[in-house]
Amino acid sequence: MTVPSRSASSRSVEAYWSACEARDWVAFGALLAEDVVYDLPQTRERVRGRAAYVRFNEEYPGDWHLTVERAVGEGLHAATWTRFTVAGTEQPALSFFEFTEAGLIGRITDFWPEPYEPPPGREHLVERY
Amino acid sequence: MTVPSRSASSRSVEAYWSACEARDWVAFGALLAEDVVYDLPQTRERVRGRAAYVRFNEEYPGDWHLTVERAVGEGLHAATWTRFTVAGTEQPALSFFEFTEAGLIGRITDFWPEPYEPPPGREHLVERY
Repeated sequence: MTVPSRSASSRSVEAYWSACEARDWVAFGALLAEDVVYDLPQTRERVRGRAAYVRFNEEYPGDWHLTVERAVGEGLHAATWTRFTVAGTEQPALSFFEFTEAGLIGRITDFWPEPYEPPPGREHLVERY
Repeated sequence: MTVPSRSASSRSVEAYWSACEARDWVAFGALLAEDVVYDLPQTRERVRGRAAYVRFNEEYPGDWHLTVERAVGEGLHAATWTRFTVAGTEQPALSFFEFTEAGLIGRITDFWPEPYEPPPGREHLVERY
């Protein structure tokens, strides 16, 4: 059985997260379009441009580390599920990427979901893990 | 210019969300493996098996509606970003799918992020929208 080759977009987002974890901001910036836009819908924050977005990551506080749980790419889109750990606490991040025709990351939308208590009424269908 | 054909996995998850919005639980169930596993990491809830998972959706309360913002598929994986509305409130959902070799959905992991206030210290890099 042959293993199918990964899409260019999934390889790019894997390189993005590798550079992030390595704090290699030169490699990280080289994956981004000059006019990249980064959106955080939960806070309605937006960062515009490669320089500001690299700095946003470089200045991000805490001794955070990440592993990539999933990277999926198709055409000019990709999505990742990463697991961040900071001071022993794990936090998932879900990221959606759009690429420019030149193969650079032109838009990133990140989500950072928090734990919550399940609503009542579905105990007959679910188990807890 | 030719439009590249979508992957089988992205077409399947688009059909999954269409069936969900249409409350067509027969079409919805036909996309799922018999032993499908559905995980909600935020509440650590798990639903096992097609029958229970169809019922979980069928019984889900509220007059919810959804649109697919993004669907990305590659090989045996896919990811979607959907926008749910319930009673005028919008809620994003991020879903990661694993397929069986037979092309059925074998595992789904859903995230439902909520709004939060941004931490201080990055006002020099971000705008609000």
